[in-house]
Amino acid sequence: MQKILYPQKDDWSRLLERPDNGLEDVYDTARGILDDVKRNGDDALIKYTRMFDGVVLKTLEVSQEEIDNACLQVNSELKDAIIVARKNIETFHQLQKVQQQVVETMPGVQCWQKSVAIEKVGLYIPGGTAPLFSTVLMLAIPAKIAGCKEIVLCTPADAEGKVNPAILYAASLVGVNKIYKLGGIQAIGAMAYGTKSVPSVAKIFGPGNRFVTAAKQLVSLKDVAIDMPAGPSEVMVLADESAEATFVAADLLSQAEHGADSQVILLTDNESFLVEVESEVEKQLNDLPRKDIAVKALANSRLIVLSNTDEMLEMCNQYAPEHLIVSMRDDELIGNKVINAGSVFLGNYSPESAGDYASGTNHTLPTHGYANAYSGVNLYSYMKKITFQKISATGLANLGPSIEVMAEAEELIAHKNAVTVRLNKMDF
Amino acid sequence: MQKILYPQKDDWSRLLERPDNGLEDVYDTARGILDDVKRNGDDALIKYTRMFDGVVLKTLEVSQEEIDNACLQVNSELKDAIIVARKNIETFHQLQKVQQQVVETMPGVQCWQKSVAIEKVGLYIPGGTAPLFSTVLMLAIPAKIAGCKEIVLCTPADAEGKVNPAILYAASLVGVNKIYKLGGIQAIGAMAYGTKSVPSVAKIFGPGNRFVTAAKQLVSLKDVAIDMPAGPSEVMVLADESAEATFVAADLLSQAEHGADSQVILLTDNESFLVEVESEVEKQLNDLPRKDIAVKALANSRLIVLSNTDEMLEMCNQYAPEHLIVSMRDDELIGNKVINAGSVFLGNYSPESAGDYASGTNHTLPTHGYANAYSGVNLYSYMKKITFQKISATGLANLGPSIEVMAEAEELIAHKNAVTVRLNKMDF
Repeated sequence: MQKILYPQKDDWSRLLERPDNGLEDVYDTARGILDDVKRNGDDALIKYTRMFDGVVLKTLEVSQEEIDNACLQVNSELKDAIIVARKNIETFHQLQKVQQQVVETMPGVQCWQKSVAIEKVGLYIPGGTAPLFSTVLMLAIPAKIAGCKEIVLCTPADAEGKVNPAILYAASLVGVNKIYKLGGIQAIGAMAYGTKSVPSVAKIFGPGNRFVTAAKQLVSLKDVAIDMPAGPSEVMVLADESAEATFVAADLLSQAEHGADSQVILLTDNESFLVEVESEVEKQLNDLPRKDIAVKALANSRLIVLSNTDEMLEMCNQYAPEHLIVSMRDDELIGNKVINAGSVFLGNYSPESAGDYASGTNHTLPTHGYANAYSGVNLYSYMKKITFQKISATGLANLGPSIEVMAEAEELIAHKNAVTVRLNKMDF
Repeated sequence: MQKILYPQKDDWSRLLERPDNGLEDVYDTARGILDDVKRNGDDALIKYTRMFDGVVLKTLEVSQEEIDNACLQVNSELKDAIIVARKNIETFHQLQKVQQQVVETMPGVQCWQKSVAIEKVGLYIPGGTAPLFSTVLMLAIPAKIAGCKEIVLCTPADAEGKVNPAILYAASLVGVNKIYKLGGIQAIGAMAYGTKSVPSVAKIFGPGNRFVTAAKQLVSLKDVAIDMPAGPSEVMVLADESAEATFVAADLLSQAEHGADSQVILLTDNESFLVEVESEVEKQLNDLPRKDIAVKALANSRLIVLSNTDEMLEMCNQYAPEHLIVSMRDDELIGNKVINAGSVFLGNYSPESAGDYASGTNHTLPTHGYANAYSGVNLYSYMKKITFQKISATGLANLGPSIEVMAEAEELIAHKNAVTVRLNKMDF
């Protein structure tokens, strides 16, 4: 881990640089495979699944029997934990629902906004080193609460053609309608274009490697919406003398084990704390099964000492971290001044893991600095807001003349006429 | 206008096809100019402004003097109309604000969502045939209510280097901070990357031609967020025997005059109404200054007779129109069944023009079928939602074991440890 003491502001941008996400290099590959899926449908899906996942599939959809068997395989301790997480995630996302309210902007001019579920959504769950059933909960629960009619899930199968049982259990628990053994670019293409087996959707959600991310970006240019641009995961910790080095070290490592490209940054105004954290990281690192990955991520990571809380906040808002842990005496006060972050964890007993799994907040969050403009996944990620207006004859008599003047000034006379023909019909 | 009577469902997709948006052809041009702006900053901006707008500018920013002069040039009738529109747009967008609510998902586990303004936003206002000051209101008013600190506006100057006075008046009225004489791809590049004159922003809003749209899409892949993908404007009208042919014809024409690529579709269950509308369109068309444009748009447009209300709704939801006018006896009942649309106008006295200018709803809306997944611009387009959590020691004692079980099942042991080290420190 790089240690930096009291850096000049000129150096901040360089210190906060993120590893390149490598998307440029894979757009061509992604474009080729997407085109093939568009043209050749299921045949292309089966071909790429054989090529990349090393498995020959006859049917892409996971059968009810496979789901039932998977549910038997998940032990009851894990089931109970998943059910606790589900309840909290449901509670948090359910309460995001906003009541519709009719506004009379002028007498006789009623306007309102109505949130309506996106009918068909697609969820992507990566395969790879860790079976991310928690992401199934995070993506499917708000979809269900929103009222999406069709929730499709793609996740790659292993070399035996099987999907991790916990993923299938979580998906069936929260009401996913269809599950497909598909990963990578081809999964994104299937959900964007639709094939004989896989229905097309209107919006695709979920994390993935750079191939998946590049594919999501490409299909979002034309065919479907996506949740957000994605990049490697990251955490920033703000710590003062009230923080516990053991806890902070554990938090940094929990982010570092995600992937070799994860980024971990500690900001503190306390030089000696930095030394403590460093030695705690060394200590805890040794027992980790994913030590090799964590070591690589830590090589890109930074422990930075700044002069005071204001500087820490300023650097934090400049970085716009996906996860932000505030282990400081005035955690809530400081949290209130955060303007760019995905999810914020306040105090000594709010580890990032809590939000990753079970406290109720969503763990699909903007990375790579996108927290300066994007929200994490929330209930409204699965809904669009339609505006409505109903204007009475009196309302149009009140409002119409202003419309006529403005339309005329914009030289859009047919726009004006749409009001004039109505005003002319009224019996004043 | 093409007339289609009782089409088979197999034909619906073909009937509802939109004109190609032509983006594929301009990505290369857009990429080239964006790269140039990124590398050469203001020099590139001045070069392309000379090339495309035919004007040599010494300074890109509109001066306070120019703004003051423009405000004197706008007549008081138009000023009054703009002020009426502003009030209604403010009222409607202000009431979208949602109160923050802390949820205790489990005893000791507090979670909440906080909406925070995007600090810097950029608004694009097209030049061209109509001076769209109304779009200034639609984009800047919610930005101001959201609390964006820096609101930058780009709009091309005319051949004399001047910006339409109504645009400057509207911008100064609603609190735009900086206005630049920039149009096209170069304007988008300037706001995405920043130059010596123009600050970079985190999100770019606003309509534009296919060059602007392509540029917005390209910068959104990496650098900034954008409001939504844009395409030609469109309206669908649902009409039954309670509709007035004069009104409907005027509405169709108000959309058709937008551009030659605009699309206008009427669905009715009343054959004779279709004939009436057609003759009314012919009649009203002749007096329009933008007749030539409207005629071209009408060539792509369709009058469709369907068997009943259910079919009309089904076809409407399949098309997902940007604007939807429901001129039907049961307008509210039918409006409630609309699931894909940008903005809906109910009844005989709610012309699209009302929402275009002054009723209060936003006129920046999803086109090209994107209403199946995207919302129009609203207050929350200018804010991101940050989640927060504060867990007490007791809270973590309650929740921690579930997190440990889940993290272990995902083979993320450092995630588990972040909880374990905390539980170990508690004095139970």
